[in-house]
Amino acid sequence: MKEFDFIKQITPSFYKQSSVVKGIGDDGAVIKPPNGHELVVVADAMVEGVHFSLDYMSFHDVGHRVLAANVSDLCAMGSTPLYYIVTISVPTQYTKEDISQLYNGMQGLAKSFNMDLIGGDTTSSDQLMISITAFGSVLSNQKRLRSQAELGDLVFVTGYLGESGYGLHLLEKKEPDSYFINRHKRPVPRYHFIQASSRIDRLSLNDISDGISTELNEIAEASSVDITINYSQLPVHTDMATLQEDWLRELVLSAGEDFELVGTCSKEAWVQLEDACHQFNIPITSIGQVRMQAGERPTVKLREEERDIVLDREGYEHS
Amino acid sequence: MKEFDFIKQITPSFYKQSSVVKGIGDDGAVIKPPNGHELVVVADAMVEGVHFSLDYMSFHDVGHRVLAANVSDLCAMGSTPLYYIVTISVPTQYTKEDISQLYNGMQGLAKSFNMDLIGGDTTSSDQLMISITAFGSVLSNQKRLRSQAELGDLVFVTGYLGESGYGLHLLEKKEPDSYFINRHKRPVPRYHFIQASSRIDRLSLNDISDGISTELNEIAEASSVDITINYSQLPVHTDMATLQEDWLRELVLSAGEDFELVGTCSKEAWVQLEDACHQFNIPITSIGQVRMQAGERPTVKLREEERDIVLDREGYEHS
Repeated sequence: MKEFDFIKQITPSFYKQSSVVKGIGDDGAVIKPPNGHELVVVADAMVEGVHFSLDYMSFHDVGHRVLAANVSDLCAMGSTPLYYIVTISVPTQYTKEDISQLYNGMQGLAKSFNMDLIGGDTTSSDQLMISITAFGSVLSNQKRLRSQAELGDLVFVTGYLGESGYGLHLLEKKEPDSYFINRHKRPVPRYHFIQASSRIDRLSLNDISDGISTELNEIAEASSVDITINYSQLPVHTDMATLQEDWLRELVLSAGEDFELVGTCSKEAWVQLEDACHQFNIPITSIGQVRMQAGERPTVKLREEERDIVLDREGYEHS
Repeated sequence: MKEFDFIKQITPSFYKQSSVVKGIGDDGAVIKPPNGHELVVVADAMVEGVHFSLDYMSFHDVGHRVLAANVSDLCAMGSTPLYYIVTISVPTQYTKEDISQLYNGMQGLAKSFNMDLIGGDTTSSDQLMISITAFGSVLSNQKRLRSQAELGDLVFVTGYLGESGYGLHLLEKKEPDSYFINRHKRPVPRYHFIQASSRIDRLSLNDISDGISTELNEIAEASSVDITINYSQLPVHTDMATLQEDWLRELVLSAGEDFELVGTCSKEAWVQLEDACHQFNIPITSIGQVRMQAGERPTVKLREEERDIVLDREGYEHS
């Protein structure tokens, strides 16, 4: 694959974002972010054999998925996606057509959010690896930080939990394509949540990349609060409700990669948020409460049949 | 290596750049670039076995080198370095100490430019790979683009050519440390050139990462001009002048990775630039001229003993 020809091929003929002063084609891109806005920058990399397998995912799927992970981070910061940069390391056995498909996967998703590819780097390697840096804009008072949870907040989550993990299991078993498989291969970040929640003053927010246990622990730690969630309230797709109980539990608490959003807001804001999400057709569920930090460290607890167990970052449970 | 602990370790206790609103520790970083400035974004990745070997470079060297490549791109755009983001894929056989050394290498260089590490991602892999996105700020009218060469310009280059390539050769031969080896292991980007050239209205500029033949072809193509350089004027370190002639020629024209700057400016500006570079102790040499595009495509020519030969992007010569 000749790098020079390839760059020419992926260089867009025009940029959708007017804040792109200079796109691909020099030592770097030049941007002038919208006045009065702050710029959010996220980075997420995926490696073949670690984050995906080409045995059951196409190059197009992989491209889609790695950009989706980045856009999900932008959404979790409350920012509107703008641009992305791709560095990619490609083993020699992959063809130009393979890598074109991978970029097509990214561009397909980018298009629906008006995002521009503004730069990158292509190198060779023994293992396919894609690293993306993505940019979003946010008004200063609409940043959604992990540190913004407050005592008395409700905890909420969008969508249904464990779907991507279940989809991966079906993929590995070589089941035919289905809703759950698609949730793993082509997750769609909760882009419209940014608009739905734009009138809420304060939200703490995380996207579910590593499992809800990790994400809630991050919010608890950053906000110095305890969080209690109720197992019976965790949203599960009806077609997954019949799965073996321990497995379902693991999928729901720890599987991650659903790219749903989890966060907290005041009880007053919750009424407004639930209504707005309904209008945008975003499933949203209240799953718990933010409490005062009781012990030495912020803690996440899972309440089940009136018993509390501690959930650590990895989703392991301690009595 | 536990990712969570490691991120804690590399998170700075404060940020030198006041435009960092939120650094490491959420789904993304938040920045508010200086008013009136544009933001330059560059990306450069290095892969073990492709761009470096740990047989002859330390983890510290590798960290230094990959950030230097990015800062060099920022300088080639005329921008002042601000922040950087690192995604790194690490094979399990490398220890936390190894990777700390790699980050130390980056941080050592970053410190001299007041750059902040503001985010990143860490994954596992079979092959060490480091991808950096770096940010700089520039006033709108001080961007240094490849497309800004004009008829009648002089062509200039900073420093001496082929030093990094020669250093790599010495390293591979396991020679003891020397000036040239250090030029390969720890190149220092031409940061002060930005200040030295700040009063010049217009410059075309590229950094020499792929060899001067590639870089000059990029300027010629972006500016739709021909460029002629004179072989006898190309700056070569006196200790390299005795190398076998064909080898020296290849090092000077094609080896690259010197991270020197090559560009063009008007004859009037050249007097000013030469003087300013002298004050900043930056060696700078005039090596040729920008001419009208004579043929169908922009062309770079090497003039030697009153004979012109065409230099393509790879540095191959055609009569």
